[in-house]
Amino acid sequence: MPRSIQFWYEFASTYSYLSAMRIEEAAARHGVSVDWQPFLLGPIFFAQGWTDSPFNLYPAKGQYMWRDMERLTAHRGLPFQRPDPFPQNGLKAARLTLAIEDPAQKAAFVCAVYSAEFAHGQNIADDAVLVTCLTAAGLPEETLSQTQNPQIKAALKKQSEIAQAKGLFGAPSFLVGDELFWGDDRLDEAIKLAAEI
Amino acid sequence: MPRSIQFWYEFASTYSYLSAMRIEEAAARHGVSVDWQPFLLGPIFFAQGWTDSPFNLYPAKGQYMWRDMERLTAHRGLPFQRPDPFPQNGLKAARLTLAIEDPAQKAAFVCAVYSAEFAHGQNIADDAVLVTCLTAAGLPEETLSQTQNPQIKAALKKQSEIAQAKGLFGAPSFLVGDELFWGDDRLDEAIKLAAEI
Repeated sequence: MPRSIQFWYEFASTYSYLSAMRIEEAAARHGVSVDWQPFLLGPIFFAQGWTDSPFNLYPAKGQYMWRDMERLTAHRGLPFQRPDPFPQNGLKAARLTLAIEDPAQKAAFVCAVYSAEFAHGQNIADDAVLVTCLTAAGLPEETLSQTQNPQIKAALKKQSEIAQAKGLFGAPSFLVGDELFWGDDRLDEAIKLAAEI
Repeated sequence: MPRSIQFWYEFASTYSYLSAMRIEEAAARHGVSVDWQPFLLGPIFFAQGWTDSPFNLYPAKGQYMWRDMERLTAHRGLPFQRPDPFPQNGLKAARLTLAIEDPAQKAAFVCAVYSAEFAHGQNIADDAVLVTCLTAAGLPEETLSQTQNPQIKAALKKQSEIAQAKGLFGAPSFLVGDELFWGDDRLDEAIKLAAEI
């Protein structure tokens, strides 16, 4: 069995941006492959009574997160802009990820979307932005129509159900077998575990 | 001005245990002193509508936290038991910390309380447990009566007000000047900042 890590990301999630931009390189250093798994946190948050991002619902937590992201991105040399509105609607971007079969193109598309959102402050619900991201990943514009593919829509719903069943409650999350790690702070530990199996 | 870091801890907090057991040594390595600041999260949580620990209110988050603590304590060679009940009532322990003037005795008492709670699964609301912790820190049993000292009671209320005013929303938290860091995962970064000032 190849050594691999499942990377569960939500496009609206700031800390998922941090992981997306480094996970392939970090995993490759340990001979670990990355299995990119999009999901939506909305249904999971809603099930526990939250109708907005916890960073909006709890202002002190939100204020801290933006400062923490400023520090972390500065330290890593990553550009960072606070997108408006926040959280962004990542529904179409998540569906597109599921429609892309080639792993390298999938990773390239996801990173392009995170860059558009958090490096350039663009709205990732905008079709024009998504087309630019598809192009950056070497994919045809027509891929955009996959956002309306009923099978893809159903597959994304299934993703969020799997996430909930696996005990996920935030993003980014990493699964190595059934061992769950939450947050960019745990990425290195998760990769090390995957490398040992 | 001496280089120092404020360590804001809540006795019920599992991740505060991790920081308490390593902060003095980690800070000393960078020539930084530690200013131990007890506070209660209860009033802050209550103000945002939570009447229990978020780890109890949100079961998936709680289940993850216990597993995460198991992994982290095992990795650090720290003993770990899940206290019952959780969260523990740290009111008296927090008041006692404020009553102890000597910094070394204060740190020793706090670590003894965290060990009783999370290494030995004892109830830190129990006077007999607190007396053992006072003794371990070289303090007389009579110190226990400080839990009923009106000035100490008022000082602890003031601590939680200061915490809220400084933007704290969880524990452990670290303040270097007005720069806030949340979580044991940020302790090293906070110490580095304190060392640079």
